[in-house]
Amino acid sequence: MISKKMVGFVQNNSVIRAMFEEGKIMAAKYGKENVYDFSLGNPSVEPPKEITEAIVEIATKEEPNLVHGYMSNSGYEDVREAIAQSLNGRFGTTFTQKNILMTVGAAGGLNVIFKTLLNPGDEVIAFAPYFVEYRSYVRNYDGEIVEISPNTETFQPNLAELAEKITPKTKAVIVNTPNNPTGVVYTEETIQAMAKVLCEKEKELGTSIYLISDEPYRELVYTDVEPPYLTKYYHNTIVGYSFSKSLSLPGERIGYLVIPDTVDDADDVIAAATIANRILGYVNAPSLMQRVVAKCLDAKVDVDTYRKNRDLLYKTLTDNGFTCAKPDGAFYLFVKAPDGDDKAFTNRAKAERLLIVPGSSFACAGYCRVAYCVSYEMIERSIPSWESLAKSYGLKG
Amino acid sequence: MISKKMVGFVQNNSVIRAMFEEGKIMAAKYGKENVYDFSLGNPSVEPPKEITEAIVEIATKEEPNLVHGYMSNSGYEDVREAIAQSLNGRFGTTFTQKNILMTVGAAGGLNVIFKTLLNPGDEVIAFAPYFVEYRSYVRNYDGEIVEISPNTETFQPNLAELAEKITPKTKAVIVNTPNNPTGVVYTEETIQAMAKVLCEKEKELGTSIYLISDEPYRELVYTDVEPPYLTKYYHNTIVGYSFSKSLSLPGERIGYLVIPDTVDDADDVIAAATIANRILGYVNAPSLMQRVVAKCLDAKVDVDTYRKNRDLLYKTLTDNGFTCAKPDGAFYLFVKAPDGDDKAFTNRAKAERLLIVPGSSFACAGYCRVAYCVSYEMIERSIPSWESLAKSYGLKG
Repeated sequence: MISKKMVGFVQNNSVIRAMFEEGKIMAAKYGKENVYDFSLGNPSVEPPKEITEAIVEIATKEEPNLVHGYMSNSGYEDVREAIAQSLNGRFGTTFTQKNILMTVGAAGGLNVIFKTLLNPGDEVIAFAPYFVEYRSYVRNYDGEIVEISPNTETFQPNLAELAEKITPKTKAVIVNTPNNPTGVVYTEETIQAMAKVLCEKEKELGTSIYLISDEPYRELVYTDVEPPYLTKYYHNTIVGYSFSKSLSLPGERIGYLVIPDTVDDADDVIAAATIANRILGYVNAPSLMQRVVAKCLDAKVDVDTYRKNRDLLYKTLTDNGFTCAKPDGAFYLFVKAPDGDDKAFTNRAKAERLLIVPGSSFACAGYCRVAYCVSYEMIERSIPSWESLAKSYGLKG
Repeated sequence: MISKKMVGFVQNNSVIRAMFEEGKIMAAKYGKENVYDFSLGNPSVEPPKEITEAIVEIATKEEPNLVHGYMSNSGYEDVREAIAQSLNGRFGTTFTQKNILMTVGAAGGLNVIFKTLLNPGDEVIAFAPYFVEYRSYVRNYDGEIVEISPNTETFQPNLAELAEKITPKTKAVIVNTPNNPTGVVYTEETIQAMAKVLCEKEKELGTSIYLISDEPYRELVYTDVEPPYLTKYYHNTIVGYSFSKSLSLPGERIGYLVIPDTVDDADDVIAAATIANRILGYVNAPSLMQRVVAKCLDAKVDVDTYRKNRDLLYKTLTDNGFTCAKPDGAFYLFVKAPDGDDKAFTNRAKAERLLIVPGSSFACAGYCRVAYCVSYEMIERSIPSWESLAKSYGLKG
């Protein structure tokens, strides 16, 4: 009796989530310490202490009906202004609260902006490998994902193919940097070249092409270079942000959209996005957490913990003969399946009690994602399993 | 550049929300104490003290990555089990955690269940007057709302018309008791008669007709009779609950769906709803608040405050010659426009600095909704304005 659209979803439920559920079952069977679950992007580093302090202070000292009540659908004005000013201070932008729309995480924000922009049949371009949920978010509004094939040398976007695949139906291009699942950060040169392609195509086709920058991993970088802020490079950029990873709050569902005044029809886009936030049933981003993050805009999780994880896991994998690009951000490694079969690789890893996710779930077969937002000790304990997995493929180790 | 569907929404933005925004502007102009905003269902009674205690205890004593992290898309198992057992204790039901899906408020829950059930063109029956957002929620999935005309004597549902309007395309019937905007509570006899109609039509047509019970006002009743729990009367009932009003937490977006084992294709409906919760971008209900409400299932807001408000406002209105049904629940009065023109009534009220919402926003022209989830003092201060409004219509007073 469920809808026809949902039948397919039930049959092909999220591989990542299925793995998460299976991990819980395996943990019960083999003991939690003997299962090495690298499947989910669930932050292992604790939220900064400022979070707990802010929760207690706001819950005990601010007016309860304000803290837990309705506000404008776009969020508290003071929270949005604080975020706008924080961005302006960091990136030299000129946002005000008007440009900030508080959302139920980045997933909520992406749904809001796709609902706002897409007509049935409109195309959204994504660079493989990409977070597989984008497909669902775009299909929710009867749009179509158009994939750009991966550049498996660098995992930087293939801009020549982008230029070829833009059509009059292209409504948006979505990018995610630092990237899930590769950990790669797009360089400033890449962003400049991408902006050039988009500007030329807008002019050539007489259309608006929105660049949607999905940025949950912005603060998780292991180099000294801050990832470029895309609104500064291309006028039609809309940013989707989440505090899920930057403050280790993924369960709280708190994030925001930035819709700059420079985007085409900015006032209509802002008005429609605010309504979409309401009618999609979010109504508003969770109220207490809005106020909490506004107090913690300078707080940071301990990124060094993820860096140490990355270094140990990268060394373990490469020492054992596996191939993967060394990531500059996020908390994922994208490992090549030794014989090119990522699903078989996933199953053989599972036999070693290693839970990883096949790249075909990210539109990039032949690779697997290993999430290292786990404890350092678990990575240490998992080393014999990686060695055994390598041996089974005849790799050195 | 916004989508064609959203153009209509931007042009006809929520009257209630527009009023809320206008109220803020008027408050700045006339002084907050001189504007009597009865427009929004934003609880005025503070959350019970257990809420703040639970927030502080969970935030400071439980493991932060558990409290703020991802969990199963349907919610924490222990939270869902606590809710199931609480319902079983109150209503003699036999739910387990499997039947409970934590949602981003009732609005999130309704979107999840419509996404789960509706094919394009499917019909959802609603009894006028009804919460106008149902239209948007159904249209999000290309369904159609079919309205049953109001019974303006009692505001109980018109079941003869229900039987006439059920077709092979009827996928669901939605009810809301205690009702927004009338405050009326459906009697047990009404529910029994409605269940009979639905069972007969299912048999006659060979279809499944889901009864969706939207219950944010369940705990706000002013009689000794507990509103009937609908899953006990009709096998295909799905309940959408919210803690927004019962615990004064509307900004927190926390609620749940109950999908009993008795509904047709229960396992598929539960699986699809869990996926819909994820792909609509909710991902999961806010995590800290899930844990908070599970600790506060027996906590109650002070319903007596709303009762006093109701009594004062009902007396003020009827003493001045206005007509309205005396509500048994929720925190709304549904007042007849003296000359039948609810939009003119709203405007004339606004001239007296009284903000109310025209019934045409609830598919019931000729009436206006007055929300009394406000301070008692504001109702007292507003009395001269109601008197003046009554005089302008030539009513006694």
